[in-house]
Amino acid sequence: MPQLQRLTILDGQRSGSQIQLTESQRHYLGRVLRLREGEQFIAMNGQGQAWLATLQSNPATAELLHAVDLQTELPIALTLLMALPKTGMDDVVRQATEIGVTAIQPILSQRTLLQPSPQKLDRWRRIAQEAAEQSERQFIPEILEPQSWQDALQTWNSHESRCYFCEARGTPPPLLTCLLSDRTALETASSLIVAIGPEGGWTEEELQQAVAAGYQPVSLGARILRSVTAPLVALALVAATIESQRNGKDL
Amino acid sequence: MPQLQRLTILDGQRSGSQIQLTESQRHYLGRVLRLREGEQFIAMNGQGQAWLATLQSNPATAELLHAVDLQTELPIALTLLMALPKTGMDDVVRQATEIGVTAIQPILSQRTLLQPSPQKLDRWRRIAQEAAEQSERQFIPEILEPQSWQDALQTWNSHESRCYFCEARGTPPPLLTCLLSDRTALETASSLIVAIGPEGGWTEEELQQAVAAGYQPVSLGARILRSVTAPLVALALVAATIESQRNGKDL
Repeated sequence: MPQLQRLTILDGQRSGSQIQLTESQRHYLGRVLRLREGEQFIAMNGQGQAWLATLQSNPATAELLHAVDLQTELPIALTLLMALPKTGMDDVVRQATEIGVTAIQPILSQRTLLQPSPQKLDRWRRIAQEAAEQSERQFIPEILEPQSWQDALQTWNSHESRCYFCEARGTPPPLLTCLLSDRTALETASSLIVAIGPEGGWTEEELQQAVAAGYQPVSLGARILRSVTAPLVALALVAATIESQRNGKDL
Repeated sequence: MPQLQRLTILDGQRSGSQIQLTESQRHYLGRVLRLREGEQFIAMNGQGQAWLATLQSNPATAELLHAVDLQTELPIALTLLMALPKTGMDDVVRQATEIGVTAIQPILSQRTLLQPSPQKLDRWRRIAQEAAEQSERQFIPEILEPQSWQDALQTWNSHESRCYFCEARGTPPPLLTCLLSDRTALETASSLIVAIGPEGGWTEEELQQAVAAGYQPVSLGARILRSVTAPLVALALVAATIESQRNGKDL
Protein backbone atom coordinates (compact mmCIF):
# COMPACT_ATOMS: atom_id res chain seq x y z
CA MET A 1 0.00 0.00 0.00
CA PRO A 2 2.70 2.47 -0.88
CA GLN A 3 0.45 5.36 -1.90
CA LEU A 4 -1.29 5.70 1.49
CA GLN A 5 -0.34 8.64 3.67
CA ARG A 6 1.65 8.01 6.84
CA LEU A 7 1.17 9.25 10.36
CA THR A 8 3.50 8.64 13.29
CA ILE A 9 1.75 7.74 16.55
CA LEU A 10 3.22 7.31 20.00
CA ASP A 11 2.82 3.92 21.64
CA GLY A 12 0.82 5.65 24.42
CA GLN A 13 -1.88 6.68 21.91
CA ARG A 14 -2.65 3.05 21.15
CA SER A 15 -5.09 0.99 23.18
CA GLY A 16 -5.88 -2.39 21.61
CA SER A 17 -6.86 -1.64 18.04
CA GLN A 18 -7.86 1.96 18.80
CA ILE A 19 -5.75 5.09 18.41
CA GLN A 20 -6.59 8.32 20.19
CA LEU A 21 -5.59 11.05 17.78
CA THR A 22 -4.12 14.33 19.02
CA GLU A 23 -5.63 17.63 17.99
CA SER A 24 -2.87 18.29 15.46
CA GLN A 25 -3.14 14.77 14.00
CA ARG A 26 -6.91 15.26 13.54
CA HIS A 27 -6.23 18.52 11.81
CA TYR A 28 -3.57 16.93 9.60
CA LEU A 29 -5.71 13.94 8.59
CA GLY A 30 -8.95 15.89 8.16
CA ARG A 31 -7.93 19.30 6.92
CA VAL A 32 -4.58 18.74 5.25
CA LEU A 33 -4.99 15.25 3.79
CA ARG A 34 -8.82 15.56 3.60
CA LEU A 35 -9.38 11.99 4.75
CA ARG A 36 -12.94 11.19 5.76
CA GLU A 37 -14.61 8.51 7.89
CA GLY A 38 -13.70 5.04 6.62
CA GLU A 39 -10.68 6.20 4.65
CA GLN A 40 -7.34 4.59 5.27
CA PHE A 41 -3.81 5.61 6.17
CA ILE A 42 -0.66 3.98 7.53
CA ALA A 43 -0.04 4.45 11.26
CA MET A 44 3.61 3.90 12.20
CA ASN A 45 5.31 4.06 15.57
CA GLY A 46 8.67 5.15 14.15
CA GLN A 47 10.28 2.10 15.76
CA GLY A 48 9.68 -0.34 12.92
CA GLN A 49 5.98 -1.19 13.38
CA ALA A 50 3.20 -0.07 11.06
CA TRP A 51 -0.52 -0.72 10.70
CA LEU A 52 -3.23 -0.13 8.17
CA ALA A 53 -5.60 2.27 9.95
CA THR A 54 -9.00 3.74 9.18
CA LEU A 55 -10.64 6.95 10.41
CA GLN A 56 -13.72 6.39 12.54
CA SER A 57 -16.93 8.39 12.82
CA ASN A 58 -15.67 9.89 16.05
CA PRO A 59 -13.01 12.10 14.48
CA ALA A 60 -10.76 11.74 17.54
CA THR A 61 -10.15 8.03 16.96
CA ALA A 62 -8.87 5.68 14.31
CA GLU A 63 -8.91 1.91 14.20
CA LEU A 64 -5.93 -0.28 13.44
CA LEU A 65 -7.06 -2.93 10.95
CA HIS A 66 -3.92 -5.04 10.78
CA ALA A 67 -0.15 -4.81 10.95
CA VAL A 68 1.58 -4.19 7.66
CA ASP A 69 5.00 -5.48 6.87
CA LEU A 70 6.93 -2.75 5.13
CA GLN A 71 10.59 -3.05 4.38
CA THR A 72 12.22 0.11 3.20
CA GLU A 73 15.00 0.35 5.80
CA LEU A 74 18.68 -0.12 5.07
CA PRO A 75 19.96 -3.50 6.30
CA ILE A 76 22.61 -1.84 8.47
CA ALA A 77 22.67 0.98 11.01
CA LEU A 78 24.06 4.08 9.29
CA THR A 79 25.14 7.02 11.43
CA LEU A 80 26.05 10.46 10.12
CA LEU A 81 28.50 12.43 12.27
CA MET A 82 27.89 15.94 11.02
CA ALA A 83 30.01 18.91 12.05
CA LEU A 84 27.35 21.60 12.34
CA PRO A 85 27.26 23.90 9.30
CA LYS A 86 26.48 27.61 9.66
CA THR A 87 23.27 27.15 7.70
CA GLY A 88 21.50 24.32 5.95
CA MET A 89 21.27 21.72 8.73
CA ASP A 90 17.48 21.49 8.17
CA ASP A 91 18.10 20.26 4.62
CA VAL A 92 20.81 17.87 5.76
CA VAL A 93 18.43 16.28 8.28
CA ARG A 94 15.61 16.03 5.75
CA GLN A 95 17.67 14.58 2.93
CA ALA A 96 19.78 12.27 5.11
CA THR A 97 16.51 10.86 6.48
CA GLU A 98 15.19 10.23 2.98
CA ILE A 99 18.42 8.48 2.01
CA GLY A 100 18.03 6.16 5.01
CA VAL A 101 20.25 7.29 7.88
CA THR A 102 19.63 5.67 11.29
CA ALA A 103 21.01 8.45 13.49
CA ILE A 104 22.50 11.90 13.08
CA GLN A 105 25.12 12.96 15.59
CA PRO A 106 25.77 16.73 15.44
CA ILE A 107 29.45 17.44 16.08
CA LEU A 108 30.95 20.56 17.61
CA SER A 109 34.24 20.56 15.73
CA GLN A 110 37.09 23.00 16.17
CA ARG A 111 35.82 25.07 13.24
CA THR A 112 32.13 24.81 14.13
CA LEU A 113 30.82 28.27 14.86
CA LEU A 114 27.45 27.55 16.40
CA GLN A 115 26.20 25.65 19.38
CA PRO A 116 22.59 24.79 18.52
CA SER A 117 19.76 25.74 20.85
CA PRO A 118 17.39 23.07 22.24
CA GLN A 119 14.76 24.57 19.90
CA LYS A 120 16.97 23.67 16.94
CA LEU A 121 17.22 20.07 18.09
CA ASP A 122 13.43 19.88 18.46
CA ARG A 123 13.07 21.33 15.00
CA TRP A 124 15.47 18.78 13.49
CA ARG A 125 13.56 15.98 15.23
CA ARG A 126 10.27 17.19 13.74
CA ILE A 127 11.88 17.39 10.29
CA ALA A 128 13.25 13.85 10.67
CA GLN A 129 9.78 12.58 11.61
CA GLU A 130 8.10 14.28 8.64
CA ALA A 131 10.80 13.11 6.24
CA ALA A 132 10.56 9.53 7.55
CA GLU A 133 6.79 9.57 6.93
CA GLN A 134 7.16 11.04 3.45
CA SER A 135 9.92 8.71 2.37
CA GLU A 136 7.91 5.72 3.67
CA ARG A 137 10.41 4.62 6.24
CA GLN A 138 9.55 2.54 9.30
CA PHE A 139 12.12 4.18 11.58
CA ILE A 140 12.54 7.81 12.47
CA PRO A 141 16.24 8.63 12.66
CA GLU A 142 17.48 9.72 16.04
CA ILE A 143 18.84 13.26 16.23
CA LEU A 144 21.32 13.10 19.09
CA GLU A 145 22.59 15.81 21.43
CA PRO A 146 25.67 17.55 19.99
CA GLN A 147 29.04 16.12 21.02
CA SER A 148 32.61 17.32 20.74
CA TRP A 149 34.69 15.46 18.19
CA GLN A 150 36.76 13.80 20.91
CA ASP A 151 33.67 12.54 22.73
CA ALA A 152 32.15 11.39 19.45
CA LEU A 153 35.22 9.31 18.65
CA GLN A 154 34.85 7.55 22.02
CA THR A 155 31.27 6.64 21.16
CA TRP A 156 31.52 6.00 17.42
CA ASN A 157 34.64 4.11 16.49
CA SER A 158 36.00 1.13 14.69
CA HIS A 159 35.53 -1.33 17.55
CA GLU A 160 31.89 -1.50 16.60
CA SER A 161 31.65 -0.19 13.08
CA ARG A 162 33.18 0.58 9.71
CA CYS A 163 34.08 4.27 9.88
CA TYR A 164 34.74 6.71 7.03
CA PHE A 165 36.02 10.24 7.41
CA CYS A 166 35.37 12.56 4.44
CA GLU A 167 38.05 15.09 3.52
CA ALA A 168 37.44 17.86 0.99
CA ARG A 169 41.11 18.35 0.15
CA GLY A 170 44.13 16.08 0.36
CA THR A 171 44.35 12.87 -1.62
CA PRO A 172 42.57 10.06 0.21
CA PRO A 173 41.02 7.28 -1.90
CA PRO A 174 37.45 7.75 -3.19
CA LEU A 175 34.68 6.61 -0.84
CA LEU A 176 33.12 4.36 -3.48
CA THR A 177 36.43 2.59 -4.10
CA CYS A 178 36.76 1.96 -0.34
CA LEU A 179 33.19 0.74 0.01
CA LEU A 180 33.61 -1.73 -2.83
CA SER A 181 36.92 -3.02 -1.55
CA ASP A 182 35.42 -3.34 1.96
CA ARG A 183 32.48 -5.30 0.67
CA THR A 184 33.35 -8.49 2.53
CA ALA A 185 33.56 -6.62 5.82
CA LEU A 186 30.33 -4.76 5.02
CA GLU A 187 28.51 -8.07 4.48
CA THR A 188 28.66 -8.73 8.19
CA ALA A 189 29.13 -5.26 9.70
CA SER A 190 26.24 -4.15 11.86
CA SER A 191 27.00 -0.48 11.71
CA LEU A 192 28.59 2.05 9.41
CA ILE A 193 29.63 5.60 10.26
CA VAL A 194 30.30 8.57 7.99
CA ALA A 195 31.87 11.79 9.31
CA ILE A 196 31.52 15.11 7.45
CA GLY A 197 33.44 18.27 8.36
CA PRO A 198 32.32 21.91 8.70
CA GLU A 199 32.67 24.69 6.10
CA GLY A 200 36.32 25.30 6.93
CA GLY A 201 37.15 21.60 6.94
CA TRP A 202 38.51 19.47 9.76
CA THR A 203 41.72 20.52 11.47
CA GLU A 204 44.84 18.40 11.10
CA GLU A 205 44.44 17.40 14.75
CA GLU A 206 40.88 16.21 14.18
CA LEU A 207 42.04 14.16 11.20
CA GLN A 208 44.78 12.54 13.30
CA GLN A 209 42.30 11.73 16.06
CA ALA A 210 39.97 10.12 13.54
CA VAL A 211 42.72 7.99 12.07
CA ALA A 212 43.74 6.90 15.57
CA ALA A 213 40.13 5.83 16.23
CA GLY A 214 40.19 3.64 13.12
CA TYR A 215 38.54 5.96 10.61
CA GLN A 216 39.36 5.58 6.92
CA PRO A 217 39.92 9.00 5.29
CA VAL A 218 38.04 9.18 1.97
CA SER A 219 37.42 11.62 -0.85
CA LEU A 220 34.05 12.53 -2.37
CA GLY A 221 35.53 13.51 -5.73
CA ALA A 222 37.60 16.27 -7.30
CA ARG A 223 35.08 19.05 -6.84
CA ILE A 224 34.68 20.97 -3.57
CA LEU A 225 31.24 20.20 -2.15
CA ARG A 226 29.51 22.54 0.27
CA SER A 227 29.19 21.04 3.71
CA VAL A 228 25.45 20.58 3.18
CA THR A 229 25.95 18.66 -0.08
CA ALA A 230 28.81 16.44 1.09
CA PRO A 231 26.73 14.31 3.52
CA LEU A 232 24.15 13.56 0.83
CA VAL A 233 26.78 12.43 -1.64
CA ALA A 234 28.47 10.24 0.98
CA LEU A 235 25.22 8.74 2.27
CA ALA A 236 23.95 8.10 -1.26
CA LEU A 237 27.08 6.06 -2.01
CA VAL A 238 26.90 4.13 1.25
CA ALA A 239 23.17 3.40 0.99
CA ALA A 240 23.41 2.24 -2.62
CA THR A 241 26.38 -0.01 -1.93
CA ILE A 242 24.85 -1.63 1.14
CA GLU A 243 21.40 -2.02 -0.33
CA SER A 244 22.52 -3.50 -3.63
CA GLN A 245 24.89 -5.86 -1.86
CA ARG A 246 22.54 -7.12 0.82
CA ASN A 247 19.73 -7.59 -1.64
CA GLY A 248 21.91 -9.99 -3.58
CA LYS A 249 22.36 -7.69 -6.56
CA ASP A 250 25.69 -8.22 -8.17
CA LEU A 251 28.20 -5.48 -7.36
CA MET B 1 46.10 26.94 -5.65
CA PRO B 2 42.85 25.53 -4.44
CA GLN B 3 42.17 28.09 -1.69
CA LEU B 4 42.04 31.13 -4.01
CA GLN B 5 38.65 32.63 -4.81
CA ARG B 6 37.23 32.24 -8.30
CA LEU B 7 35.64 34.71 -10.63
CA THR B 8 34.05 33.97 -13.98
CA ILE B 9 34.95 36.40 -16.76
CA LEU B 10 33.59 36.62 -20.28
CA ASP B 11 36.06 36.21 -23.14
CA GLY B 12 35.18 39.75 -24.25
CA GLN B 13 36.53 41.17 -20.98
CA ARG B 14 40.00 39.89 -21.78
CA SER B 15 42.51 41.85 -23.86
CA GLY B 16 45.99 40.31 -23.83
CA SER B 17 46.86 39.79 -20.20
CA GLN B 18 44.42 42.47 -18.97
CA ILE B 19 40.87 41.97 -17.74
CA GLN B 20 38.39 44.81 -17.61
CA LEU B 21 36.25 44.13 -14.54
CA THR B 22 32.56 44.94 -14.48
CA GLU B 23 31.09 47.09 -11.75
CA SER B 24 29.64 44.07 -9.96
CA GLN B 25 32.90 42.12 -10.23
CA ARG B 26 34.78 45.06 -8.70
CA HIS B 27 32.27 45.17 -5.90
CA TYR B 28 32.55 41.41 -5.37
CA LEU B 29 36.36 41.35 -5.33
CA GLY B 30 36.80 44.53 -3.30
CA ARG B 31 33.85 44.62 -0.94
CA VAL B 32 32.79 41.01 -0.58
CA LEU B 33 36.12 39.19 -0.80
CA ARG B 34 38.10 42.23 0.43
CA LEU B 35 40.92 41.66 -2.02
CA ARG B 36 43.34 44.55 -2.39
CA GLU B 37 45.87 45.63 -5.00
CA GLY B 38 48.37 42.88 -5.70
CA GLU B 39 46.21 40.13 -4.20
CA GLN B 40 45.40 37.08 -6.30
CA PHE B 41 42.37 35.18 -7.47
CA ILE B 42 41.52 32.63 -10.14
CA ALA B 43 39.86 34.02 -13.27
CA MET B 44 37.97 31.35 -15.22
CA ASN B 45 36.05 31.60 -18.45
CA GLY B 46 33.62 28.80 -17.58
CA GLN B 47 34.68 26.94 -20.70
CA GLY B 48 37.64 25.09 -19.25
CA GLN B 49 40.30 27.82 -19.12
CA ALA B 50 41.60 29.46 -15.94
CA TRP B 51 44.33 31.92 -15.03
CA LEU B 52 46.03 33.16 -11.93
CA ALA B 53 45.07 36.85 -11.78
CA THR B 54 46.06 39.79 -9.64
CA LEU B 55 44.19 43.01 -8.83
CA GLN B 56 45.87 46.14 -10.17
CA SER B 57 46.07 49.63 -8.71
CA ASN B 58 43.36 50.72 -11.11
CA PRO B 59 40.49 48.88 -9.43
CA ALA B 60 38.74 48.36 -12.78
CA THR B 61 41.44 46.03 -14.08
CA ALA B 62 43.21 42.84 -13.20
CA GLU B 63 46.21 41.19 -14.79
CA LEU B 64 46.39 37.58 -15.86
CA LEU B 65 49.72 36.20 -14.64
CA HIS B 66 49.60 32.76 -16.22
CA ALA B 67 47.24 30.00 -17.19
CA VAL B 68 46.58 27.42 -14.49
CA ASP B 69 45.84 23.83 -15.24
CA LEU B 70 43.06 22.72 -12.97
CA GLN B 71 41.38 19.38 -13.35
CA THR B 72 38.26 18.95 -11.32
CA GLU B 73 35.86 18.08 -14.13
CA LEU B 74 34.29 14.66 -14.63
CA PRO B 75 35.91 12.79 -17.53
CA ILE B 76 32.54 12.40 -19.30
CA ALA B 77 29.67 14.73 -20.21
CA LEU B 78 26.89 14.19 -17.66
CA THR B 79 23.44 15.58 -18.44
CA LEU B 80 20.56 15.74 -15.98
CA LEU B 81 17.09 15.65 -17.53
CA MET B 82 15.00 17.07 -14.72
CA ALA B 83 11.22 17.16 -14.79
CA LEU B 84 10.58 20.51 -13.14
CA PRO B 85 9.58 20.18 -9.49
CA LYS B 86 7.04 22.53 -7.91
CA THR B 87 9.74 23.96 -5.65
CA GLY B 88 13.38 23.35 -5.01
CA MET B 89 14.86 23.67 -8.51
CA ASP B 90 17.33 26.27 -7.18
CA ASP B 91 18.82 23.65 -4.86
CA VAL B 92 18.87 21.03 -7.60
CA VAL B 93 20.83 23.36 -9.89
CA ARG B 94 23.27 24.31 -7.13
CA GLN B 95 23.91 20.79 -5.88
CA ALA B 96 23.98 19.15 -9.32
CA THR B 97 26.60 21.72 -10.33
CA GLU B 98 28.72 20.89 -7.28
CA ILE B 99 28.49 17.18 -8.05
CA GLY B 100 29.77 17.84 -11.56
CA VAL B 101 26.92 17.90 -14.07
CA THR B 102 27.69 19.25 -17.56
CA ALA B 103 24.18 20.34 -18.54
CA ILE B 104 20.73 20.49 -16.99
CA GLN B 105 17.79 20.03 -19.31
CA PRO B 106 14.51 21.07 -17.62
CA ILE B 107 11.68 18.79 -18.75
CA LEU B 108 8.00 19.65 -19.03
CA SER B 109 6.60 16.22 -18.22
CA GLN B 110 2.94 15.25 -18.20
CA ARG B 111 2.78 15.79 -14.44
CA THR B 112 4.89 18.97 -14.39
CA LEU B 113 2.76 21.80 -13.12
CA LEU B 114 4.84 24.82 -13.93
CA GLN B 115 6.31 26.34 -17.04
CA PRO B 116 9.27 28.39 -15.81
CA SER B 117 9.57 32.08 -16.67
CA PRO B 118 12.65 33.43 -18.49
CA GLN B 119 13.56 35.04 -15.15
CA LYS B 120 13.75 31.61 -13.59
CA LEU B 121 16.12 30.39 -16.26
CA ASP B 122 18.34 33.43 -15.73
CA ARG B 123 18.28 32.76 -12.02
CA TRP B 124 19.29 29.11 -12.48
CA ARG B 125 22.13 30.19 -14.77
CA ARG B 126 23.43 32.59 -12.12
CA ILE B 127 23.20 29.87 -9.48
CA ALA B 128 25.10 27.44 -11.75
CA GLN B 129 27.84 30.03 -12.25
CA GLU B 130 28.21 30.72 -8.53
CA ALA B 131 28.18 27.03 -7.68
CA ALA B 132 30.79 26.27 -10.36
CA GLU B 133 33.08 28.96 -8.89
CA GLN B 134 32.57 27.73 -5.32
CA SER B 135 33.08 24.08 -6.14
CA GLU B 136 36.24 24.96 -8.12
CA ARG B 137 35.05 23.70 -11.45
CA GLN B 138 36.40 24.84 -14.80
CA PHE B 139 33.07 24.57 -16.62
CA ILE B 140 29.78 26.21 -15.85
CA PRO B 141 26.97 23.77 -16.56
CA GLU B 142 24.57 24.80 -19.27
CA ILE B 143 20.99 25.35 -18.17
CA LEU B 144 18.98 24.64 -21.30
CA GLU B 145 15.57 25.88 -22.39
CA PRO B 146 12.79 23.56 -21.13
CA GLN B 147 11.72 20.78 -23.48
CA SER B 148 8.81 18.39 -23.59
CA TRP B 149 9.70 14.80 -22.76
CA GLN B 150 9.13 13.72 -26.35
CA ASP B 151 11.42 16.41 -27.71
CA ALA B 152 14.02 15.62 -25.06
CA LEU B 153 14.07 11.97 -26.09
CA GLN B 154 14.83 13.02 -29.66
CA THR B 155 17.82 15.03 -28.46
CA TRP B 156 19.09 12.86 -25.62
CA ASN B 157 19.03 9.20 -26.44
CA SER B 158 21.02 6.03 -26.59
CA HIS B 159 22.46 6.64 -30.04
CA GLU B 160 24.94 8.98 -28.42
CA SER B 161 24.93 8.15 -24.74
CA ARG B 162 24.30 5.75 -21.87
CA CYS B 163 20.86 6.70 -20.59
CA TYR B 164 19.28 5.95 -17.20
CA PHE B 165 15.69 6.63 -16.24
CA CYS B 166 14.98 6.79 -12.48
CA GLU B 167 11.70 5.35 -11.22
CA ALA B 168 10.52 5.87 -7.64
CA ARG B 169 8.23 2.83 -7.62
CA GLY B 170 8.22 -0.40 -9.57
CA THR B 171 11.11 -2.84 -9.38
CA PRO B 172 13.86 -1.82 -11.79
CA PRO B 173 17.45 -2.77 -10.86
CA PRO B 174 19.42 -0.35 -8.65
CA LEU B 175 21.32 2.40 -10.50
CA LEU B 176 24.64 1.44 -8.87
CA THR B 177 24.29 -2.17 -9.97
CA CYS B 178 23.64 -1.01 -13.55
CA LEU B 179 26.56 1.42 -13.52
CA LEU B 180 28.95 -1.26 -12.32
CA SER B 181 27.75 -3.82 -14.81
CA ASP B 182 27.96 -1.20 -17.59
CA ARG B 183 31.53 -0.35 -16.66
CA THR B 184 33.04 -1.55 -19.92
CA ALA B 185 30.64 0.59 -21.93
CA LEU B 186 31.24 3.54 -19.61
CA GLU B 187 35.00 3.30 -20.20
CA THR B 188 34.50 4.56 -23.73
CA ALA B 189 31.17 6.40 -23.53
CA SER B 190 31.43 10.12 -24.16
CA SER B 191 28.17 11.04 -22.54
CA LEU B 192 25.85 9.84 -19.82
CA ILE B 193 22.27 10.93 -19.20
CA VAL B 194 20.12 10.65 -16.08
CA ALA B 195 16.38 11.41 -16.13
CA ILE B 196 14.46 12.27 -12.94
CA GLY B 197 10.67 12.52 -12.75
CA PRO B 198 8.38 15.11 -11.15
CA GLU B 199 6.65 14.85 -7.74
CA GLY B 200 3.88 12.64 -9.07
CA GLY B 201 6.28 10.40 -10.96
CA TRP B 202 6.47 9.71 -14.67
CA THR B 203 3.37 8.43 -16.45
CA GLU B 204 3.34 4.91 -17.87
CA GLU B 205 3.42 6.47 -21.35
CA GLU B 206 6.55 8.46 -20.53
CA LEU B 207 8.22 5.33 -19.20
CA GLN B 208 7.41 3.46 -22.41
CA GLN B 209 8.77 6.29 -24.52
CA ALA B 210 12.01 6.28 -22.53
CA VAL B 211 12.45 2.54 -22.91
CA ALA B 212 11.83 2.88 -26.65
CA ALA B 213 14.59 5.53 -26.79
CA GLY B 214 17.04 3.13 -25.15
CA TYR B 215 16.78 4.30 -21.54
CA GLN B 216 17.54 1.80 -18.77
CA PRO B 217 14.95 2.10 -15.95
CA VAL B 218 16.71 2.13 -12.58
CA SER B 219 15.85 2.39 -8.89
CA LEU B 220 17.45 4.72 -6.35
CA GLY B 221 16.67 2.47 -3.38
CA ALA B 222 13.71 1.31 -1.31
CA ARG B 223 12.88 4.69 0.19
CA ILE B 224 10.81 7.30 -1.63
CA LEU B 225 13.02 10.30 -2.35
CA ARG B 226 11.58 13.75 -2.94
CA SER B 227 12.09 14.92 -6.49
CA VAL B 228 14.73 17.41 -5.31
CA THR B 229 16.74 14.71 -3.51
CA ALA B 230 16.54 12.06 -6.23
CA PRO B 231 18.80 13.88 -8.75
CA LEU B 232 21.53 14.35 -6.15
CA VAL B 233 21.51 10.68 -5.21
CA ALA B 234 21.60 9.61 -8.85
CA LEU B 235 24.32 12.10 -9.85
CA ALA B 236 26.43 11.21 -6.79
CA LEU B 237 26.41 7.55 -7.85
CA VAL B 238 27.22 8.34 -11.48
CA ALA B 239 29.99 10.83 -10.67
CA ALA B 240 31.65 8.50 -8.16
CA THR B 241 31.52 5.53 -10.52
CA ILE B 242 32.91 7.42 -13.49
CA GLU B 243 35.56 9.28 -11.55
CA SER B 244 36.88 6.24 -9.70
CA GLN B 245 36.93 4.20 -12.88
CA ARG B 246 38.58 6.71 -15.17
CA ASN B 247 41.17 7.58 -12.56
CA GLY B 248 42.24 3.97 -12.55
CA LYS B 249 40.97 3.24 -9.06
CA ASP B 250 39.87 -0.33 -8.73
CA LEU B 251 36.08 -0.72 -8.80
